[in-house]
Amino acid sequence: KSPITASSSAVASTYDTWCGVAHGCTKKIGLKICGFLQRNNSLEDKSRLVSALKERQSSRNLLACENSEKEGRFQKTETDFSNLYARDLLPAKNGEEQTVQFLLEVVDILLTYVKKTFDRSTKVLDFHHPHQLLEGMEGFNLELSDNPESLEQILVDCRDSLKYGVRTGHPRFFNQLSTGLDIIGLAGEWLTSTANTNMFTYEIAPVFVLMEQITLRKMREIIGWTNKDGDGIFSPGGAISNMYSIMAARYKYFPEVKTKGMSASIIPFFLLNILEFKAGAALGFDICTSLPGCLCVYVQGYIPLYVTATAGTTVYGAFDPIPEIADICDKYNLWLHVDAAWGGGLLMSRKHRHKLNGIERANSVTWNPHKMMGVLLQCSAILLREKGILQGCNQMCAGYLFQQDKQYDITYDTGDKAIQCGRHVDIFKFWLMWKAKGTVGFESQINKCLELSEYLYNKIKNRQEFEMVFEGEPEHTNVCFWYIPPSLRGMPDSEERREKLHRVAPKIKALMMETGTTMVGYQPQGEKVNFFRMVISNPAATKSDIDFLIEEIERLGQDL
Amino acid sequence: KSPITASSSAVASTYDTWCGVAHGCTKKIGLKICGFLQRNNSLEDKSRLVSALKERQSSRNLLACENSEKEGRFQKTETDFSNLYARDLLPAKNGEEQTVQFLLEVVDILLTYVKKTFDRSTKVLDFHHPHQLLEGMEGFNLELSDNPESLEQILVDCRDSLKYGVRTGHPRFFNQLSTGLDIIGLAGEWLTSTANTNMFTYEIAPVFVLMEQITLRKMREIIGWTNKDGDGIFSPGGAISNMYSIMAARYKYFPEVKTKGMSASIIPFFLLNILEFKAGAALGFDICTSLPGCLCVYVQGYIPLYVTATAGTTVYGAFDPIPEIADICDKYNLWLHVDAAWGGGLLMSRKHRHKLNGIERANSVTWNPHKMMGVLLQCSAILLREKGILQGCNQMCAGYLFQQDKQYDITYDTGDKAIQCGRHVDIFKFWLMWKAKGTVGFESQINKCLELSEYLYNKIKNRQEFEMVFEGEPEHTNVCFWYIPPSLRGMPDSEERREKLHRVAPKIKALMMETGTTMVGYQPQGEKVNFFRMVISNPAATKSDIDFLIEEIERLGQDL
Repeated sequence: KSPITASSSAVASTYDTWCGVAHGCTKKIGLKICGFLQRNNSLEDKSRLVSALKERQSSRNLLACENSEKEGRFQKTETDFSNLYARDLLPAKNGEEQTVQFLLEVVDILLTYVKKTFDRSTKVLDFHHPHQLLEGMEGFNLELSDNPESLEQILVDCRDSLKYGVRTGHPRFFNQLSTGLDIIGLAGEWLTSTANTNMFTYEIAPVFVLMEQITLRKMREIIGWTNKDGDGIFSPGGAISNMYSIMAARYKYFPEVKTKGMSASIIPFFLLNILEFKAGAALGFDICTSLPGCLCVYVQGYIPLYVTATAGTTVYGAFDPIPEIADICDKYNLWLHVDAAWGGGLLMSRKHRHKLNGIERANSVTWNPHKMMGVLLQCSAILLREKGILQGCNQMCAGYLFQQDKQYDITYDTGDKAIQCGRHVDIFKFWLMWKAKGTVGFESQINKCLELSEYLYNKIKNRQEFEMVFEGEPEHTNVCFWYIPPSLRGMPDSEERREKLHRVAPKIKALMMETGTTMVGYQPQGEKVNFFRMVISNPAATKSDIDFLIEEIERLGQDL
Repeated sequence: KSPITASSSAVASTYDTWCGVAHGCTKKIGLKICGFLQRNNSLEDKSRLVSALKERQSSRNLLACENSEKEGRFQKTETDFSNLYARDLLPAKNGEEQTVQFLLEVVDILLTYVKKTFDRSTKVLDFHHPHQLLEGMEGFNLELSDNPESLEQILVDCRDSLKYGVRTGHPRFFNQLSTGLDIIGLAGEWLTSTANTNMFTYEIAPVFVLMEQITLRKMREIIGWTNKDGDGIFSPGGAISNMYSIMAARYKYFPEVKTKGMSASIIPFFLLNILEFKAGAALGFDICTSLPGCLCVYVQGYIPLYVTATAGTTVYGAFDPIPEIADICDKYNLWLHVDAAWGGGLLMSRKHRHKLNGIERANSVTWNPHKMMGVLLQCSAILLREKGILQGCNQMCAGYLFQQDKQYDITYDTGDKAIQCGRHVDIFKFWLMWKAKGTVGFESQINKCLELSEYLYNKIKNRQEFEMVFEGEPEHTNVCFWYIPPSLRGMPDSEERREKLHRVAPKIKALMMETGTTMVGYQPQGEKVNFFRMVISNPAATKSDIDFLIEEIERLGQDL
């Protein structure tokens, strides 16, 4: 069928043999060589394969041959979608061609979006107020109805959904801890949606379950835990990962709470920051929010139990001194959790990982690859030094969910470790990115972001137009600063100045969103009035984007 | 650039005008007409547009013209991926072409997979034991390394990950409550990953946040709540949705638990089933698992608080009698939660929704569109009749997360209602499916699945090879049955027969997975030994697939 040159006929014949058993069978013979040799291939087949591979490596004949095929497997053709509906797609009879054409059209929209996302002449967003979008932009109607819309309209809806959204992968989007659009991660997520399975059991997600296990082990090694059999699981986000750690600690110290409720034990006392606060309140604990520098472990009538050290706080990007906290935990037999949702990525960098020194003394660690490592949302891991606790605290022995008499080794089933039943596949995109970049790729990506934040810090720290929020160099990529508009420069500190300054960042941010050129977050913190928090986690950002942001803030704020 | 006929020149010129502001700009002029008219277009532009639209509707000239463009916007070209790496893709300089080619190659793999998924000659799975995959199938190495792999290898990894996985969209995959591969949903999920944002705030997900609000309102209407301002949120799954309901009930009755912990109140008493059991244990409650038919509300020393009625149990697909339970809840002022994770889909069917009669009396409802409605994983909603409770019980007033001084109406921000900070966009695929099918499309899809289960039930209920697990017609698509192999037919009930029968389903299931032809779940339940639980939620399944399953069970079990 495909034109094959004489020199590659041995490969072609082996390829044909494989075709019967392999599912992929694309025209990329070269690719298939690595992937689809079956167990039952004879030795002869293997030697033919090896010589074919050698041939391929020595010349590029085979590749040239492949490339002589001008047609892709799937070709976009003339399709009128205005008379086609969802019901005409697979599994509809003869729905194959429409399905392919529809999906190719969607891919066209997505590729256009991807290209433009990295194009600095594209806006970061095209801002509209809620009421504007709700009233319906021309042709974009958010309401749902009883009757179906044509695929043509569905394609328009797809375009509009992107058009009125925010380009979080844009090199000038600095608004969140999660930014960027990693192409390998994107491919991974497209594949994940296509596989559409569930991390519940090995039975229905064999490859993904193993990838999760391998990746978690690698992450534990990087944390520095030397025992082989720690544990962990990917959860829907940092808040839930932290919740897992609290449940694990509670189970470790008071296993009876699981079956008898919180009344079974004296209510433990926690040291928590605001993020754990949500989880702790959810779980029914008394809460004591930690104060900086205050590690008050004893409160009358309570049993201390659990301490969180934060590695990379949300606003300042600060790292708690883990060794000192670990010493206290050792002394009083407390569970040490390190919330490295944001800072965990720095473990990948030989240059920066010292900021998390002592993390290997933690009992549990939250680490969100969807933040500093640029993995697509959602991707958060809770890692535990000790095996068995997750299982112990979450398993309900529901035989109707997890059969014990399967033909494979059921220790690979993950459902009894999770608080969820269905669990989304968050691992594949991350695993694929790791494969594609290697540990060194993550390292250089992370180093680059930190260099950029250093550049920003050095650029503005001594300028009269800016004032830094905290002393010294940022530990993470968080750079917190006030923009001081001309009208406030030189004005001595006073309530009036504070009130005025408090209104500067929101005004600039509003203008920024209206013009759509860039986005950066702001907030007040304690006594400090609204300031900008710049964070850099997007590998697409460069010095020129930092320069742009600063100029844009000055431009938008000059008349305030 | 594109060949445009004279008759469409007016459109072409308007099109050019839009191009500067629109992001999509594909060659599909016809599509763009609806989507991209800008607010600032002049009246003249609009009238030109209208006449262009009319022209388009009256003839098909324009479309013919469009279709005369043989080239797609993105064309697959000769690309040697063996020397390309992740670092060569965007945001790399000149990385655009490689990015497009790489993603098109991935799409090729995915489209092949999609096509084969619906092809009954394809296996459902190619089973391997964990140790086999871990040892590495030829060329498929799951281990992560320090150094990057070429994009060629990454593409191989993508193919292999699909090859060794399970085709959950296959018409003969009946193993889970979530099955099928909806093409519109798939397109929606690809777009969601490409947009890669977070449901945190309107600021970064304006379109998705509004879609969520509109869809939740629609779902509440369908439940039958007549008040306009209920509430709800999409969560990562049914277990977490149920957890939300428990937290909401606790907050409603004992708001002080939020800040003071569970010791602040007498520990409430719950009626729970096994799924809420996990959530309840997590939250630190004393648990009383409900017994069928036993609505014992009083236990000494406890305050009753919360009752769950299940609409569609996991194994039998049974529906609790909601009106009777609601009467008791009214009498004793209890929170009524309906867990309709599995059964909720039936609300879309005029024929079957009576099974959930009384659901409008609930205080909260869990409803997972990723189950009976065929939405891709994950998609689960928790719906509340009363507004304000979610916000009340989860907001922590973290000004650094949720600024109150934004330029838009911040009541659209969802972060303070959630227990999560980052929250995956689960709404878009569901919204898009609803647009594409309409309510009536979901209705017919669901009716069809129920017809198939009726077909199965009628087919096997009176045959000597099968024995039904419960009396009467199934209420949902769950059909539970034992296959009785020849050696056990006619044998009177005895411990020996029970033991032997217990081993039948696991054996057949193992053979089924080895041959890879179909998959169906089994489990014991209470006193009942292992039986098959057939569920149908895949719109791709037909009577022939049901016939196939039954024949396959008989074929694999005939010698047992």
